[in-house]
Amino acid sequence: MLSLNQAKTVIAAGEAKATVIGVPVIVAVLDAGAHLKAFSRMDGAVLGSIDIALRKARTAVLFETSSEAVWDYCKPGAPAHALEFSNGGLAPFAGGIPLRDTAGAMIGAVGVSGGAVAQDLEIAEAAVAALGV
Amino acid sequence: MLSLNQAKTVIAAGEAKATVIGVPVIVAVLDAGAHLKAFSRMDGAVLGSIDIALRKARTAVLFETSSEAVWDYCKPGAPAHALEFSNGGLAPFAGGIPLRDTAGAMIGAVGVSGGAVAQDLEIAEAAVAALGV
Amino acid sequence: MLSLNQAKTVIAAGEAKATVIGVPVIVAVLDAGAHLKAFSRMDGAVLGSIDIALRKARTAVLFETSSEAVWDYCKPGAPAHALEFSNGGLAPFAGGIPLRDTAGAMIGAVGVSGGAVAQDLEIAEAAVAALGV
Amino acid sequence: MLSLNQAKTVIAAGEAKATVIGVPVIVAVLDAGAHLKAFSRMDGAVLGSIDIALRKARTAVLFETSSEAVWDYCKPGAPAHALEFSNGGLAPFAGGIPLRDTAGAMIGAVGVSGGAVAQDLEIAEAAVAALGV
Repeated sequence: MLSLNQAKTVIAAGEAKATVIGVPVIVAVLDAGAHLKAFSRMDGAVLGSIDIALRKARTAVLFETSSEAVWDYCKPGAPAHALEFSNGGLAPFAGGIPLRDTAGAMIGAVGVSGGAVAQDLEIAEAAVAALGV
Repeated sequence: MLSLNQAKTVIAAGEAKATVIGVPVIVAVLDAGAHLKAFSRMDGAVLGSIDIALRKARTAVLFETSSEAVWDYCKPGAPAHALEFSNGGLAPFAGGIPLRDTAGAMIGAVGVSGGAVAQDLEIAEAAVAALGV
Repeated sequence: MLSLNQAKTVIAAGEAKATVIGVPVIVAVLDAGAHLKAFSRMDGAVLGSIDIALRKARTAVLFETSSEAVWDYCKPGAPAHALEFSNGGLAPFAGGIPLRDTAGAMIGAVGVSGGAVAQDLEIAEAAVAALGV
Repeated sequence: MLSLNQAKTVIAAGEAKATVIGVPVIVAVLDAGAHLKAFSRMDGAVLGSIDIALRKARTAVLFETSSEAVWDYCKPGAPAHALEFSNGGLAPFAGGIPLRDTAGAMIGAVGVSGGAVAQDLEIAEAAVAALGV
């Protein structure tokens, strides 16, 4: 089970990486049931990214994979057309990554939004890495 | 009219096929009014598939056809652009199949999600076949 | 973590009690994250009870208590006026009960609707008792 | 304008008071536009309080007053019957308090939920006091 300490560690690492890159982002952490555990919006991040960060994390929890991996199932020509409209709307692009415990079980996910997609991904990866598993 | 015994037969057959294939899925059964009759989530199925299984079954009931058949109406170049956004959002890909009585009248639908789309379809077909009509 | 076998045991016990009483009900089982695990609608249960059974179980999970206990917080004169409108709408009356493991941790909840409230409660209690914890 | 540092100060003070009281709570901080700035769910807080903490803070921002003050307008006998159903649903009970800058301008609000209403209020007051204005 994801602890608040773990969630804060994830957020701090994400903010640190975002500061290095120089882009203000939102970092959202959900538990394994997709319920909000911790959230932080850096000064200067656009309002539209609040929902996107939450949605990326939610996408990662719901499918137990990175948010962009979901796109492989619903992109044009793939078999699950319109999958992205399920579950209240997914965010099938980079920046959402599952959090796992040392046994590999998913304990939640982080979602990052505010920069370019590649930046969001880099920040999310740094955030996840801070868990040290 | 779909009975609970029929719905349980459909779910048991779907679960049996999923076990043979080795993929945990969700099997949802709706009645002819698109109201939930029975539902089962196998251990290990991802949370995101709950909504998708329900949505596939709903798509099948609403149009009295397999869920993927709806895609023919709304795919790029087809006349009903954005049809998939009607009715609260359809799931126009395989895994939803109408249930019929011996006279051919639709009495509900089954929706399966959790595996690859081809697996979901195979499981849904096994589930429907268990009705023996 | 709630298993599908446990959920089916809960539902079977609820249905057995409802059959003894002679009232068709809906029995819904959610996991600890309030996600649907299993569901069964007995023949003859009214459609309006689908949502109520789900909502009772959801109320029990969200507050880790029986659904009717929530009414103590929001009834006229109590301090949390309009609490029942939070979380998409609660069902603060009897029929929703948490499910616990042998260590006492909440692993989900059952919600029953279809009969008189006292009947729903009796059926929910029988359903929970079947877990044997 | 509310800074992330201020929001974190508010949350830390709320968590510290909750720890002293011995009740796990959720502390949500919104900006003056009612958009989420920071959020923290202490281990053990019930899931139902996520929405309530957010809703209390939202109620405080929307009416620039404490959440329970809104009850005076909508309680039985008051002139604004059903006011609590506006704005997607208010939480007109204690635990939501506006945040103000040194000039007295509202810069956001804090919402606390998880304990008894009186505890939530005490925690929210400690959280607001940490801003030192």
